[in-house]
Amino acid sequence: MPNFAALPGFRDFYPDDLAVRTHIMRTWRSVARRYGFEEYDGPPLEPLDLYTEKSGPEIVQQLYNFTDKGDREVSLRPEMTPTLARMVGARAGGLRKPVKWFSIPQLFRYERQQRGRLREHFQLNLDIVGEPGVGADAELLAAAIDVLRAFGLTADDFVARVSDRRLLRALLLHAQVPEERLTLVYNIVDKLERETRDAITARLSGEAGLGDTVVEEVLAIFRHRDFDAVREAYGGIAGLGEEIARLGEYFSALDAMGLGAFVRFDLSVVRGLAYYTGAVFELFDARGELRAIAGGGRYDNLLKQVSDADLPALGFGMGDVVLRELLADRGLLPRAERRLDAYLVAITPEERPEMLGLAHQLRDAGWAVDYGLRHLGVGKQFKNAAALNARRTVVLGPDEIADGVAVIRDMESGEERRVPLADVASA
Amino acid sequence: MPNFAALPGFRDFYPDDLAVRTHIMRTWRSVARRYGFEEYDGPPLEPLDLYTEKSGPEIVQQLYNFTDKGDREVSLRPEMTPTLARMVGARAGGLRKPVKWFSIPQLFRYERQQRGRLREHFQLNLDIVGEPGVGADAELLAAAIDVLRAFGLTADDFVARVSDRRLLRALLLHAQVPEERLTLVYNIVDKLERETRDAITARLSGEAGLGDTVVEEVLAIFRHRDFDAVREAYGGIAGLGEEIARLGEYFSALDAMGLGAFVRFDLSVVRGLAYYTGAVFELFDARGELRAIAGGGRYDNLLKQVSDADLPALGFGMGDVVLRELLADRGLLPRAERRLDAYLVAITPEERPEMLGLAHQLRDAGWAVDYGLRHLGVGKQFKNAAALNARRTVVLGPDEIADGVAVIRDMESGEERRVPLADVASA
Repeated sequence: MPNFAALPGFRDFYPDDLAVRTHIMRTWRSVARRYGFEEYDGPPLEPLDLYTEKSGPEIVQQLYNFTDKGDREVSLRPEMTPTLARMVGARAGGLRKPVKWFSIPQLFRYERQQRGRLREHFQLNLDIVGEPGVGADAELLAAAIDVLRAFGLTADDFVARVSDRRLLRALLLHAQVPEERLTLVYNIVDKLERETRDAITARLSGEAGLGDTVVEEVLAIFRHRDFDAVREAYGGIAGLGEEIARLGEYFSALDAMGLGAFVRFDLSVVRGLAYYTGAVFELFDARGELRAIAGGGRYDNLLKQVSDADLPALGFGMGDVVLRELLADRGLLPRAERRLDAYLVAITPEERPEMLGLAHQLRDAGWAVDYGLRHLGVGKQFKNAAALNARRTVVLGPDEIADGVAVIRDMESGEERRVPLADVASA
Repeated sequence: MPNFAALPGFRDFYPDDLAVRTHIMRTWRSVARRYGFEEYDGPPLEPLDLYTEKSGPEIVQQLYNFTDKGDREVSLRPEMTPTLARMVGARAGGLRKPVKWFSIPQLFRYERQQRGRLREHFQLNLDIVGEPGVGADAELLAAAIDVLRAFGLTADDFVARVSDRRLLRALLLHAQVPEERLTLVYNIVDKLERETRDAITARLSGEAGLGDTVVEEVLAIFRHRDFDAVREAYGGIAGLGEEIARLGEYFSALDAMGLGAFVRFDLSVVRGLAYYTGAVFELFDARGELRAIAGGGRYDNLLKQVSDADLPALGFGMGDVVLRELLADRGLLPRAERRLDAYLVAITPEERPEMLGLAHQLRDAGWAVDYGLRHLGVGKQFKNAAALNARRTVVLGPDEIADGVAVIRDMESGEERRVPLADVASA
């Protein structure tokens, strides 16, 4: 007799865990709907090419990919955006723009196992397709912030770090970084927070081969720690002014929504290099103890890569794992409680038919009801009612049946009432 | 530029389709909770052995199985029960009995593609573990019936065909069918509805090698079309009487719940041969046009096969595909409607900051709100409000801003009101 366990990196959701997952998903859905997003879903298994087309062949080593029985190369989905792009692309002509869609897929990556790192997680994906203007970028970040606010998190708990790939590119070109070395420089500045200034300087000179004045210009860009300073330094320069004005509009929109306190401008946020084409953001816990809670931005080139449609697009993903850690840490997880509206008690086996009838009547009225599936001693039945956290017990004995009533006991107050059987549901 | 599509047999859920799926899942959850079941979930990917242990090696040809990057033999889950048995078994000592759990997994089978047959579906799974008595069997079937009733289906739309593997076995043994040919006979009578009486008779004599009187006895068993007739014929016979009394209790419990009209006794319902050990049932549409809507029964031997725990268990599965066909056929699918509480209209671009502030305020108050992500002509904005089926428009122009008000227009009645900006959420 073998003893089976879940695969490493996969979670079993026992009822208490599932209640937390339900709370998270319900909150995600509620905010997405308030923002006018519609839910969609795609298959958890997709053609492998869909992912290599977006991310290159290297992605395969991180995938749950295999050859199916029809000789197709397939993969469990590692992310949702390619599916979204495929689905929107396939019906691009018939869909009202902007498309505002969300989804809550389970995603899979074959990560080398370390420190209990998971190989699956659930992720809220919220995307806007068909709108090139920054109004859409502001709407997207506002939604991400409001999702966290809906869990009870405040500006003391998390921050959105915002950058813009178009502005960063323009600034680096203006600093005389050669176009062909931009990617290298992105990679180096992406480490700004984790490496010393000297190390960065050495890499910009060595790896990227930039001259001393160019290195100084590049470092100067990142010395500006807020948007106003960047605007002041570069706002009047041709080719930069437009980018800065556009980003200014983005921050103004977030201010108008009352969300300015959650947003911090930080040009060192780089994210997926080949992928993002405009504003990008990451949400972090304010103490900087956890991995990113969410991340996203504008990716205007993806749709034409996987479909016939060439539409601008932007979106973010928020996983359930880091979020759950943060909520647990802040005491914001709901206490799992299974609460029955009533537990029915039969004094003798003779009342079981009436008890079954009453159970059905109450359930039809929408009550959550349980009872002993076999006759048990009365004490044991009351014990079960308490263990299942029932709001009330409804007791039927020979006397009650004779009188056509039930005794309803409120389990909190202990108060008892005799109520005609037909009226229990409205009692 | 490749043009991607979903894999054959996999569904894309565009928002209108997803709305139907949500309606189905919400109804499933609602009834499960009324019956006091708690939701759980397991991984969609499991060790392959978990399925071959239950169903034998032949199952592999129907599975999405593969070797993962850590050389594990794994499979997408084709059914939920092995996962349930594994999870309950792993914590058997600590769980309150009976365990009443439900789940809504997506399941995968590599079926040869025919007539658009799907390779994935969603399935409500509802199981009770740890209770051997027929009270649990009645509770389970009542829940299955009430799930369909909750969709608006009636006794005119569907029927539960019920049999009992223990009684059938006892009846066949009493008819002098040798123990070692029981499985063969089960397989033959399973076709009773689809083959002629002569064909069945020939197979019982030929394949099963039964003598003429035994064949006659076997056929006589199935000539009884209701439970009372079986009780009258066999109730007094030792070894049969106990089984019949037990099943009588089961039907009485369903009668006591007022569900007798949905249930039909039918000994020819056989189901999974090696698997079921007691009462079994299948739910069919009353016109007999569709495949089974749901099926299940008692499987007391599974837990000890996949865990250290030896606990009696029973459960059923109900897929989303046949159910959806039936609901569509009966006009019981909800009309997909995306209904915004408000669409905000700005007369000129100057009102956008106030509009964004108002959008955020209304969303914080729980409203579903949308607006143009860029400024559009007023006519176009009203057109969008109508297309998105908004309940109201909230209009902001220069005059309104000057007066600190918004104009709320009810989109159904056309009625308009001027309301102070701060009071729109409560208007």
